[in-house]
Amino acid sequence: MSTAFRLSQRAAWAEGQPISDLMAQALANPDLISLAAGFVDQETLPVDATRQAVDALLTDPPDAQAALQYGTTPGYLPLREALLDRFLASNPVPHPVSTRQVVVTAGSNQLLHLVAETLLNPGDIVLCAAPTYLVFLGTLNNLGARSLGVTSDQQGMIPEALEDTLQGLEKTGDLARVKAIYLVPYFDNPSGATMTAQRRAEVVRLAKRWSRGHRIHVISDCAYRELKYTGDDEPSVRCFDEEGDTVIVAGTFSKSFSPGIRVGWGILPEDLVDPVCNQKGNIDFGSPNFSQHLMAKVLELGLFEPHVERLRVEYHRKLRCMLEAADEFLGPLSGVHWAAPSGGLYVWVHLPESVRTGPQGRLFDVAIGEGVLYVPGQFCYPREGEPVRANTMRLSFGVQSCPRIRAGLESLARAIAIVQRGES
Amino acid sequence: MSTAFRLSQRAAWAEGQPISDLMAQALANPDLISLAAGFVDQETLPVDATRQAVDALLTDPPDAQAALQYGTTPGYLPLREALLDRFLASNPVPHPVSTRQVVVTAGSNQLLHLVAETLLNPGDIVLCAAPTYLVFLGTLNNLGARSLGVTSDQQGMIPEALEDTLQGLEKTGDLARVKAIYLVPYFDNPSGATMTAQRRAEVVRLAKRWSRGHRIHVISDCAYRELKYTGDDEPSVRCFDEEGDTVIVAGTFSKSFSPGIRVGWGILPEDLVDPVCNQKGNIDFGSPNFSQHLMAKVLELGLFEPHVERLRVEYHRKLRCMLEAADEFLGPLSGVHWAAPSGGLYVWVHLPESVRTGPQGRLFDVAIGEGVLYVPGQFCYPREGEPVRANTMRLSFGVQSCPRIRAGLESLARAIAIVQRGES
Repeated sequence: MSTAFRLSQRAAWAEGQPISDLMAQALANPDLISLAAGFVDQETLPVDATRQAVDALLTDPPDAQAALQYGTTPGYLPLREALLDRFLASNPVPHPVSTRQVVVTAGSNQLLHLVAETLLNPGDIVLCAAPTYLVFLGTLNNLGARSLGVTSDQQGMIPEALEDTLQGLEKTGDLARVKAIYLVPYFDNPSGATMTAQRRAEVVRLAKRWSRGHRIHVISDCAYRELKYTGDDEPSVRCFDEEGDTVIVAGTFSKSFSPGIRVGWGILPEDLVDPVCNQKGNIDFGSPNFSQHLMAKVLELGLFEPHVERLRVEYHRKLRCMLEAADEFLGPLSGVHWAAPSGGLYVWVHLPESVRTGPQGRLFDVAIGEGVLYVPGQFCYPREGEPVRANTMRLSFGVQSCPRIRAGLESLARAIAIVQRGES
Repeated sequence: MSTAFRLSQRAAWAEGQPISDLMAQALANPDLISLAAGFVDQETLPVDATRQAVDALLTDPPDAQAALQYGTTPGYLPLREALLDRFLASNPVPHPVSTRQVVVTAGSNQLLHLVAETLLNPGDIVLCAAPTYLVFLGTLNNLGARSLGVTSDQQGMIPEALEDTLQGLEKTGDLARVKAIYLVPYFDNPSGATMTAQRRAEVVRLAKRWSRGHRIHVISDCAYRELKYTGDDEPSVRCFDEEGDTVIVAGTFSKSFSPGIRVGWGILPEDLVDPVCNQKGNIDFGSPNFSQHLMAKVLELGLFEPHVERLRVEYHRKLRCMLEAADEFLGPLSGVHWAAPSGGLYVWVHLPESVRTGPQGRLFDVAIGEGVLYVPGQFCYPREGEPVRANTMRLSFGVQSCPRIRAGLESLARAIAIVQRGES
């Protein structure tokens, strides 16, 4: 006879992650063409570059031993220096940043979690683009925090809508609960949107202007920044933070090099460094040091840039495949539209209002029947604010080959046509 | 002009970690002989074994790509299978364990954090040996949980004292807040104590008997289990869990192979697996997959056992150096005593009642002046329950060479003598 145990409040908040159900679907139907997963292309993973870096790392015994030993909570100093140098080289910041402000984490997700843990009490509010990165919505939910969607378009969060939202929260007495504004300003996951420099500046200005009694931080999640295929690079949101106290930058090598090595980082306002590191010390007592030394060696040996350049070529090719297939198969369907992103891994698709893309709607099952899996757009909407667009979906071109992307879009178009004709 | 930000309650709870101050002391005094750090011996780190495993891993492109790709939240299946096989080979469990119950984490600290996060609300109580592992006390504190020390001796937590504590908590109406009993049953950090099979059985029996209305889990932190130098191996605490619902086992390769690769694991009751994985998905979206594939390869190639056998020889030698030096230098001092552990990395020392070992007492500064650093015992005591013994210290023999261990003990004896004579 077993006595039941009680879950913590946190554990209760963490239940029912939609992405797990999607992955279960994919596993149960191995023949499916998954346009759902945000994984990177297995074929492009840097086996040779990793081997060269590991060889170099393990050849020198003191270096090798240092990599195999415990590291420090904020991370390996030479890596943090290299990350900061790279950042400053392309982002003229008005307020200086020191190496102390760079903290290395196990992927940028861990950085986002640590920052959320440091800033948010249950009931606190984070303003997000609508739609936004679904895993971060899970993190907020797990903390009992409120996610609130701000109207967004193909240049990301709309500053006027942000201001309206802040005014509305002031009226309802909720402004004191707003702790952060979360942006994915480069090739947003899922919308593909890239914020213009003007919008970046405006969001930072609004965060500062509405910081009354307490600071509202701007979290700039740059997971996809390296994966730019067309257009100009935009300056970091940090470039518009005159005092250097407002913007938190999150970065990662997961998309640009290897998610398995799993090295991310944050560039934090000076006074956030200690609180974030205190959390980190209690949560994992330091991220894997070997991974950090390995990535430092990859950068030192000049192996990173050529790899990411190859990635750009390859993903740009796949993006074109997806856009061409979309034109061919989705184009003829009335009320279906999408925008071409200039980087990243995702194309965001709107269907006619009447079509529900979620697991409760017909399309999801019909699409699986036709052999294709997508991420229902509803999972990417914050819990409050901007209403959920249940007629949207996220398609990823990262994992599949061009022929399978094309076959997937053909199946998807067939499924949409079936649902629109009212067949099953 | 910068607006102040508000820390979360969590962040406030996480402030003031004593270990950070100790590390700062060590860094500020590089000539110090640190007997404080629980690091492993840099010279013994497995450079060759790691190279062999990495070579094997990266030689086969599909294997290599899988290691560089995202993994799953519970971890790499072949590694989890190998961990379970190893566990079952030396621990006859009365209730079956499946691979599903094995979850891989970034070190055992992450597992402990995830379990604490899953089970504990602020104000909940975890019963610990007194003294106990100081980093876990920090984790509990960070969650707003209460740590409560149970009287312990050289066989660890005393079951009769545990029962007295539970009875006392029942009387004060606090029994409903007791969620777990935390043990480090092999070569405890810091006490060096190993629990007898009888005590293990008794603690599990008590946990089950006192599980009224809700389950009280037993967390068995086996970080040092592989580092056994003398005596017989004791069966896992899990061997006394007839229903398989009470005991959580935490393990790690940090001490037995490499803390830099940072792979730990948990063996969980069936109904804890999903809640723990839900937390994990939100906190780091999966532990580094490359590290997991690397450790799986280390096990597969038979590189682990020879390495840990070398470690046992080397650390046993260092333990003997420390015990001999203790006999020689501390032995003549009245009121100073310690016990010889049969494994692990620590010797726990009692000084006369009048000597305070903490940073506020004289000994700590005098010892630094004499060139040696130790961990003040007070940091290792839970916040409530068994009173803090301020006259204790933890000495680690893991990092230093035998001559430096000897020199460190000589300096420490000199410092104690100075303080006892009332000089400064």
